[in-house]
Amino acid sequence: MSATGKKEIKTVAIIGTGVIGASWTALYLARGLKVLVTDPAPNAEKNLETYLNAQWPTLTRIGLSEGASLTNYTFVESLDNHFDEIDFIQEVPFPVQILSAILLTATKNGPERLEFKRTLFAYLDEKARPEIIIASSSSGIPSSEYVSACRHHPERVLVGHPFNPPHLIPLVEVVPHASTDRETVVPRAMEFYKSLGKKPVLIQREIPGFIVNRLQAAVLMEAYSLVSRGIISAADLDTTMTSSLGLRWALNGPFALNAMAGNGSFQHFLEHLGPAAKSWHDDMHEHTFEMTPQAIQDLSKTVEPTVQATDLDALQKERDDVLLKLMDMKSKSSLLD
Amino acid sequence: MSATGKKEIKTVAIIGTGVIGASWTALYLARGLKVLVTDPAPNAEKNLETYLNAQWPTLTRIGLSEGASLTNYTFVESLDNHFDEIDFIQEVPFPVQILSAILLTATKNGPERLEFKRTLFAYLDEKARPEIIIASSSSGIPSSEYVSACRHHPERVLVGHPFNPPHLIPLVEVVPHASTDRETVVPRAMEFYKSLGKKPVLIQREIPGFIVNRLQAAVLMEAYSLVSRGIISAADLDTTMTSSLGLRWALNGPFALNAMAGNGSFQHFLEHLGPAAKSWHDDMHEHTFEMTPQAIQDLSKTVEPTVQATDLDALQKERDDVLLKLMDMKSKSSLLD
Repeated sequence: MSATGKKEIKTVAIIGTGVIGASWTALYLARGLKVLVTDPAPNAEKNLETYLNAQWPTLTRIGLSEGASLTNYTFVESLDNHFDEIDFIQEVPFPVQILSAILLTATKNGPERLEFKRTLFAYLDEKARPEIIIASSSSGIPSSEYVSACRHHPERVLVGHPFNPPHLIPLVEVVPHASTDRETVVPRAMEFYKSLGKKPVLIQREIPGFIVNRLQAAVLMEAYSLVSRGIISAADLDTTMTSSLGLRWALNGPFALNAMAGNGSFQHFLEHLGPAAKSWHDDMHEHTFEMTPQAIQDLSKTVEPTVQATDLDALQKERDDVLLKLMDMKSKSSLLD
Repeated sequence: MSATGKKEIKTVAIIGTGVIGASWTALYLARGLKVLVTDPAPNAEKNLETYLNAQWPTLTRIGLSEGASLTNYTFVESLDNHFDEIDFIQEVPFPVQILSAILLTATKNGPERLEFKRTLFAYLDEKARPEIIIASSSSGIPSSEYVSACRHHPERVLVGHPFNPPHLIPLVEVVPHASTDRETVVPRAMEFYKSLGKKPVLIQREIPGFIVNRLQAAVLMEAYSLVSRGIISAADLDTTMTSSLGLRWALNGPFALNAMAGNGSFQHFLEHLGPAAKSWHDDMHEHTFEMTPQAIQDLSKTVEPTVQATDLDALQKERDDVLLKLMDMKSKSSLLD
């Protein structure tokens, strides 16, 4: 028992072992936790084992916590007999094809998907001990849309949305629904993720896409527009990001950078450069990329040759190597979060 | 003389030695070029010397080119007697107060500023040898607005817009006006910047803000909106960037990342996730931050305490250290641009 009377989190249940679920499993194991995993997909157990074996060297390089073990997980057909030992639940949305198999329907985002989520969370809420946090990894459906099915303790349900892959990228968006307990549940979830070395941020209200997806979409939509309009090539657009803004944003957030540019005053920056940003934003809006099938096809025709000329596997491998070194440098720096 | 019959660039003239001009000077010196500098501001010569002395250790750490010397520059009152030896001209917009002193007016963006630019470029065009490229560092006024004053060789005028500070951040936005010579001038400018270790990108047409400022504004405007709406704190917004998107964008551009996420196909990604990005973009537009004096003041009141609680100088120093290491790692990687 911890000082607050809550049992320490020692065993995590993960429901769903696609890419995100498998990566969560790898992270929890590396931080010395025990993991119970379940997933009805064919070959799920074997695929998970393969994934964990492939990622363990990376996690070892980052540094394993005391008691960490690659084999400290159990793949179970059902969680039914295990709720006594489960201290935290991380749900991961099932891929559409698995969901379809379960629900005997092929509809993607329709009521069936939400219905399945409701059924799952009602089940978890009924079975899990009252103080156990149930976190969904999904940004697609905010928890307010299915928590009504939880008749016992809806206040311990929230979203813990990671950035892919969770075992490497630090961010977790913690998103309570309107009735999530702000006094104990939210702080405990934040604290738990922090204890894993993650960087949780608190999103006060559910909004479409939460934060990361919105900031990313802001850049993507303008990037699509610029290349579609023939202003810049896709390759040069990528260079623009990796050789300027990306270098900055890996190390400082927008507000810190604004304050630095304003000689220590955010207000000074905003008063002097805000109107220009607004005028560029207005111009971007006038040229918003139309996400029509034709526009998608035309843009793809322009971008695909650049992509196909790139060895993406090699790029990704080398990227991951530099990424690990970068995060290691950042973690050794006291000032950079 | 090079193979193309053009004289190699050995001497660069820099007009204007504010932060950007001084940083350009530092870069050119470190790459072994000779620099002629002029700036009518009081103390300009002394300020430049102080800046160069402060930056030289960093440039030494990055690596000096053959013949590089901290003292290989001459501060001149006028370029008049030096055009014979000038091989490239990098103009840097004068700060408003200097411009005001010259023009005896305090108007910032009015006709006086443009008139001064026209006068300056007419002078440079008349004096510089016909094949000498005249590059402006400004993103504020596109060269089409003042090149009409160049009666001799307007085709050698373009914008070479760096990212602050130019001696560290690789990107240069090369922006020709409609009549800039695409056959020789644009490729020579690109080649020259590349030879300095810069990453030039070609912007095909003048648009407001060019590329970097637009992508940055897309993120900033949404960041301002999110914090103003109370969705997330300024500190957490910064963490969102530095612990997820920024890490990615330092190493891969948006299109490469889309293709990776689409298992090698950009089109696959766009067809499946484009509509979601569009829907978030639409929602962002509905909540666009109003850049009114009141909104600026309210947002500043929220953000300023976070900024004031941060030791920005220490943060910047540590950031620059990690930035140098990051760029060194990237330069040793064959795949990452």
